[in-house]
Amino acid sequence: MTVHSDPVAMTIPTFDDVIAAHERIMPHIHRTPVLTSSYLNALTGAELFFKCENFQKAGAFKVRGASNAVFGLSEDMLQRGVATHSSGNHALSLSYAAGRRGIPCTVVMPRTAPQAKKDAVRGYGGKIIECEPSTSSREATFAKVVAETGAEFVHPYNDPRVIAGQATCSRELLEQTDGLDAVIAPIGGGGMISGTCLTLSRLAPEMKIYAAEPDQADDAARSFRAGHIIADDAPVTVADGLKVPLKELTWHFVKSYVTDVLTASEDEIIEAMKITWKRMKIVMEPSCAVPLATILRNPEVFRGKRIGVIITGGNVDLDHLPWLKG
Amino acid sequence: MTVHSDPVAMTIPTFDDVIAAHERIMPHIHRTPVLTSSYLNALTGAELFFKCENFQKAGAFKVRGASNAVFGLSEDMLQRGVATHSSGNHALSLSYAAGRRGIPCTVVMPRTAPQAKKDAVRGYGGKIIECEPSTSSREATFAKVVAETGAEFVHPYNDPRVIAGQATCSRELLEQTDGLDAVIAPIGGGGMISGTCLTLSRLAPEMKIYAAEPDQADDAARSFRAGHIIADDAPVTVADGLKVPLKELTWHFVKSYVTDVLTASEDEIIEAMKITWKRMKIVMEPSCAVPLATILRNPEVFRGKRIGVIITGGNVDLDHLPWLKG
Repeated sequence: MTVHSDPVAMTIPTFDDVIAAHERIMPHIHRTPVLTSSYLNALTGAELFFKCENFQKAGAFKVRGASNAVFGLSEDMLQRGVATHSSGNHALSLSYAAGRRGIPCTVVMPRTAPQAKKDAVRGYGGKIIECEPSTSSREATFAKVVAETGAEFVHPYNDPRVIAGQATCSRELLEQTDGLDAVIAPIGGGGMISGTCLTLSRLAPEMKIYAAEPDQADDAARSFRAGHIIADDAPVTVADGLKVPLKELTWHFVKSYVTDVLTASEDEIIEAMKITWKRMKIVMEPSCAVPLATILRNPEVFRGKRIGVIITGGNVDLDHLPWLKG
Repeated sequence: MTVHSDPVAMTIPTFDDVIAAHERIMPHIHRTPVLTSSYLNALTGAELFFKCENFQKAGAFKVRGASNAVFGLSEDMLQRGVATHSSGNHALSLSYAAGRRGIPCTVVMPRTAPQAKKDAVRGYGGKIIECEPSTSSREATFAKVVAETGAEFVHPYNDPRVIAGQATCSRELLEQTDGLDAVIAPIGGGGMISGTCLTLSRLAPEMKIYAAEPDQADDAARSFRAGHIIADDAPVTVADGLKVPLKELTWHFVKSYVTDVLTASEDEIIEAMKITWKRMKIVMEPSCAVPLATILRNPEVFRGKRIGVIITGGNVDLDHLPWLKG
């Protein structure tokens, strides 16, 4: 159904890319467990199956896409390595994957990024080039890095290799569960949701796909309703992994396959995060609580259904928990 | 080897009791997972296998012993139910088990106990009778409860049914791992350690057994060296599950089978707790961090060895995390 004269359509990954990605990255990632909670089932009236990517290598699903890009590099690219701009899990994941392959990884990061994130990137062997906390400084600094190193740019989500890698997560989820009615995942730039769409549209086309995002960063919900990409200008939310906008590739998947984009308030997200920590005894990021928060806000959509919920990562600042603020 | 004229020896549980307990409680508990962490392996130089009872029903291993006592009750005892005094995980666990069997459970608890614990006991259907926060008040109140209800007293640890129940944990751990050199668990009253001794002395008598406790509540270590029970008077430690003293039954197992009792400082315990949350992405109690803290303090004992580490529970007050104090 894709139109191949469209340059975006040319780069849309296929399910064959997902199978190849899974085989390529399998030695470098965990097949993360699927957990259930009788308490949360009773609370929501649904049967929830949590795919726990907080237990993933480097602490997040993003290692799937980053590993697929790194281990798919041709031999002649290895010496120049990879580069990206990110102050989040993609930076850690790309550094981890590059370290496993023994190639250089350069990350452009605002000098104001948390020290813990910088330490983690360096801990995995990544090299950090600091920029000012502005888009113009980031773009200029990144262009300089690529010009100097010739490194391969691996975008955090708008990259077919990355989306094919993220798609391996819901492939595992389907194998680990005995039939689902829907899958729900947080949406920021849309890499995880796009991967979910890619896998489910092939393996379980009848299954519904929900994207969950904060009220205060609801650009995907507004894009979904408007029919074109709307980007927020510097949204403020506790779910700090979900601030970035959709791009062409991820928008293709969202507009083609997503059932609905649901949102939740900051308080609802923090409450869902705390209740998950308390009852499931797992450490996860605020972003991961957005799906549960939207399920609790829209019980009629999920009641009586079997729902896969993707817990995307566990890299939390334990010194600054959102329910202890103020 | 036990002397049957000794009244304590008469009540020492056997491995047959463990097998019976396991069959009895299996429908009511989780077979909890065993997790590993390449980071913590590198940090300690050992291979650590964490048996995650923080994911257990009611949030702690204590549900094993409590369920064994409750589901082993004879029919004529059911109407009168069970009773205990505890402000910790045993109270939750006994309430959970009694609720599953549909029998009354009365818990005597100091009126100063945290509201969250009271709510949790009531949430599982337990009835709370409050006493003053003193031993004399607790004993008088508890005697009155038993006189009025005729309920069966289930002690938190000095009870053969409870010890046989806790022993099922290391039986699973052995089944889930491919050979270990040692098992380490926290020691408070000694119920978990006694169960570990009971199972390992039969199934893997060559395996070492380490008990871990806080420097500030080191009554088990001092008892172990002195050769008789020494009870602390109101110890103060962040590891609040480990304040209670050994009793005859648990002392029998400690003196007969434990390799050594190791201790750690408050700072070491808090650091081990935080690093486990950060790297393993699991929520666990301060008490559960004591084994890792002692491993980090005594690396030469554990280096190059395969070590089972029992994570005993996950019922933490998320509003008061020990590294955020002060």
